[in-house]
Amino acid sequence: MTNDQITPEQPQPHLGSLAVGGQEVILTRAAAADVPAIVALLADDVLGQGREHAGTDPRYTEAFEAIDADPNQVLVVARAGGEMAATAQLTFIPGLSRGGALRAQVEAVRVAADYRGAGLGEAFFRWMATYAADRGATLMQLTSDRSRTDAVRFYERLGFVASHVGMKLPLHASGPTASASAESEPHQTRPGP
Amino acid sequence: MTNDQITPEQPQPHLGSLAVGGQEVILTRAAAADVPAIVALLADDVLGQGREHAGTDPRYTEAFEAIDADPNQVLVVARAGGEMAATAQLTFIPGLSRGGALRAQVEAVRVAADYRGAGLGEAFFRWMATYAADRGATLMQLTSDRSRTDAVRFYERLGFVASHVGMKLPLHASGPTASASAESEPHQTRPGP
Repeated sequence: MTNDQITPEQPQPHLGSLAVGGQEVILTRAAAADVPAIVALLADDVLGQGREHAGTDPRYTEAFEAIDADPNQVLVVARAGGEMAATAQLTFIPGLSRGGALRAQVEAVRVAADYRGAGLGEAFFRWMATYAADRGATLMQLTSDRSRTDAVRFYERLGFVASHVGMKLPLHASGPTASASAESEPHQTRPGP
Repeated sequence: MTNDQITPEQPQPHLGSLAVGGQEVILTRAAAADVPAIVALLADDVLGQGREHAGTDPRYTEAFEAIDADPNQVLVVARAGGEMAATAQLTFIPGLSRGGALRAQVEAVRVAADYRGAGLGEAFFRWMATYAADRGATLMQLTSDRSRTDAVRFYERLGFVASHVGMKLPLHASGPTASASAESEPHQTRPGP
């Protein structure tokens, strides 16, 4: 995809709309021009503030282009009165397990401070579940940081079950930061081309 | 992709190899012909046995074709002496958060009963971490059912941190199975085309 195709002038594909507290919220796929505002939302958060950079950092542009080029990624922005009110990324993951189930994974959910507590988060999730089911997904999944106890309660209220432990491993170019002892290190070949 | 391109006669792309307990383990991308054996591995499990069908069920063929057509999915099979010893699926997820981090998610990990306890699982994970880092991922993530306490300890030994709660919501064609009350139901439009 060339930059010409993702200029802000191109209309953003409409995905749906919600009525929240009497206000219309318009859902679209994110455009390149939305990236700084999405990054600002990601950073306006107790965990996010320590791990995001300026929204104009070229790493975000590259990541946006990878998302936008992949039909299994749907980066959604929710706007109320022209203002960005919320964002989330849906990833569709085909798999063999659970009878060949298509999973819809939700990452990077944020509701802008001015729009919290008004029901937008719940309406947005219900819309995402409908959208994902319409695309054939039979399971929606997400992980929430253990420290976000309010978020876990919110998801449980929507019907999510906290059945799993979510685990993360930072990777470095030289491999994992594993702490396992050296004698268990296997002989490894580099991945093929 | 036509079926001709995924016949068992086509050589499976080689990904790497491991030496585990003096035996060579060959890693390849899964081919269509591997699907029944992968499904048998998924089903040979206390949780999997209740949720898988016969490996020849067309839902698995369709799911395999979706995986195989998506460059962000890598369904790996590990063979020792021609026998399927392990499988796992890697999904590469581009995203804006954490500075535009590319995530490598691991799903559907299984080691065949005859190969457990010999270090294959650890060698396989170390290989996956290297492969993912070589493709530019800076974070590997997975969820493990809370009831698999041995698995959680295994992942912690590899350096994974159990920082998150993994939550799942079954989806039905009509939307989520949410238990929230009707008065909070938002007005929703159907997703656009």
